[in-house]
Amino acid sequence: MQIDVTVGATTWVIADGYIPPQSSGPAPAMTSHDSACILNAGQRDAHVELVLYFADREPVGPYALTVPARRAHHQRLNDLAGPEPVPIGVDYCCVITSDAPIVVQHTRLDSRQAANALMSTIAYPAG
Amino acid sequence: MQIDVTVGATTWVIADGYIPPQSSGPAPAMTSHDSACILNAGQRDAHVELVLYFADREPVGPYALTVPARRAHHQRLNDLAGPEPVPIGVDYCCVITSDAPIVVQHTRLDSRQAANALMSTIAYPAG
Amino acid sequence: MQIDVTVGATTWVIADGYIPPQSSGPAPAMTSHDSACILNAGQRDAHVELVLYFADREPVGPYALTVPARRAHHQRLNDLAGPEPVPIGVDYCCVITSDAPIVVQHTRLDSRQAANALMSTIAYPAG
Amino acid sequence: MQIDVTVGATTWVIADGYIPPQSSGPAPAMTSHDSACILNAGQRDAHVELVLYFADREPVGPYALTVPARRAHHQRLNDLAGPEPVPIGVDYCCVITSDAPIVVQHTRLDSRQAANALMSTIAYPAG
Repeated sequence: MQIDVTVGATTWVIADGYIPPQSSGPAPAMTSHDSACILNAGQRDAHVELVLYFADREPVGPYALTVPARRAHHQRLNDLAGPEPVPIGVDYCCVITSDAPIVVQHTRLDSRQAANALMSTIAYPAG
Repeated sequence: MQIDVTVGATTWVIADGYIPPQSSGPAPAMTSHDSACILNAGQRDAHVELVLYFADREPVGPYALTVPARRAHHQRLNDLAGPEPVPIGVDYCCVITSDAPIVVQHTRLDSRQAANALMSTIAYPAG
Repeated sequence: MQIDVTVGATTWVIADGYIPPQSSGPAPAMTSHDSACILNAGQRDAHVELVLYFADREPVGPYALTVPARRAHHQRLNDLAGPEPVPIGVDYCCVITSDAPIVVQHTRLDSRQAANALMSTIAYPAG
Repeated sequence: MQIDVTVGATTWVIADGYIPPQSSGPAPAMTSHDSACILNAGQRDAHVELVLYFADREPVGPYALTVPARRAHHQRLNDLAGPEPVPIGVDYCCVITSDAPIVVQHTRLDSRQAANALMSTIAYPAG
C-alpha cells in the first residue's frame, strides 16, 4: 500500500499541563500521566521541540524528540528526561514546534482516586 | 421534513488512539473501546477510509466503510476487521479520509478499573 | 456594565451523541445525559434548531429552542420533547443551526457505573 | 535559552461552565472545580478579562487577571473573587478576552462521586 498524506500544523499548544502526583493501579499502564500524542503522516522525519511554561519561572526547554516519517509517537510528559524532569503536581503549559507538519492530541490519565479519570483534546494548532 | 445540510471536511485525524486491554462490566456496552463517530449530513453516501499509524512499523490500511447520506455512523475501532484487526493495548494514530464532507469525533471508553472513564474530542479537520 | 460581544458560528456539529441508559446517584444531577451547552453573547435572541441523525433511519427534527440575548443555555438532549423524545441508548449525531452566532460545547455525564465519567469538547463549527 | 513565540487568540469561549457542588477527597487538590488554563507565551504581559453568562440574568464581570509574559496561569473559576463569587452548582458560559494573544483550555474536575471524573477541551478561539 502507498500512503502519502501530509497533514497538520507545525506549532501546537497544550494549555492545561499537570501530572497528578499519586496513582492507583499497576505501573506503568495506570500511572497518572500527561501525554502528547503526535502523528507524523508525512514522508520525512519530524524534529519536534517542546517548551514548558510555568506560573512562576522562565520557560524550560527545548525537549527534543524525533517522530519518524509515517509514524505515531505518544510521548508521556512524565518520561521526558532533559534539560530537566517535568515536575510532578505542578501546573504548566506546553508549546510544541516541528519542522514538518504533525498533529497533536493531549490526554491525561488521572488515577489519584480508585478508578481512573481520562481527559483528551486535540491541542491548539497555532501555526 | 426537508433537510439539506452539507457540513464538515474530508480529512480528519485522531492522534491518540489506544484500545485499553481490560474491561469491567457487561459487554459490549462497557467494553473498553475507541470510537470514531462520523456524521454524513449530506445527500450522497460517503466512502470513508481509515489508515492507522504505529510507533514502530509502516501504516496499515485502508479500512473502508460507507456512511450513507443523512446518517450517523459510530465506528468502534475494536470492530474493524480487515486488512487486519486493530491491535489491543497498542498506541496508534488514525487518518480518516472521505469522498464527501463528514464530521468526526473521537471517544474512548476505558473500563480497566471499576468505574469507567470517558474522553472525547472533535478530531482534527485537516482538509 | 456594558458588554457587547458577538462571538461564534451559526452551524455546529456534535458527532458522538449517546445517552447512556442507566444511572447511579441522585436524579437529576447524576442522571446520565448528553448536553449541548450554548452561549449567545450577542444583543439579539438566537433561534436555534437541532436536527438528529441516526444510523438506520431518516433525520429527526428540528427541535427548536430560543437562547435569549446575553444568556447561557445548557440543554440536556434527554429533555427535548418534540417532535419526538431523543431515544436512550442509541447512537446519534446532531447538527445545530442558529440565526445568530452562538458557541456550542458538547458534554456527556455517564453514571452507568458507580462513579460518574465525564467527557467534553467544543463542538465542530461548520459555518 | 531564548524563547520568542507569540501564539493564540485574544477572545476565547467556554460554553459549558459548571462547578459541581460536592467533592470527595482532600481539598484543594480534589475539590470539584472548573479551570481556565491560560498560556501567555509572548513577550509582554496579558491583561485578561472574564465575563460570565447565565441562564436567567445579565452577565457578570469583568473578572480581571494578569498573565505575565512567558507564563502559565491555571485559574480555578471557584477562586475568582470579585465582582462577585462564581456561583456553585449553576450553569454558566464564559468569554475570555485579552490584550495579547493567549491560549485557553477548559478543564473540569468533578469529584461528587467516589472517584473523580475529568473533562477537558481547548476553548473556542473566537477572534
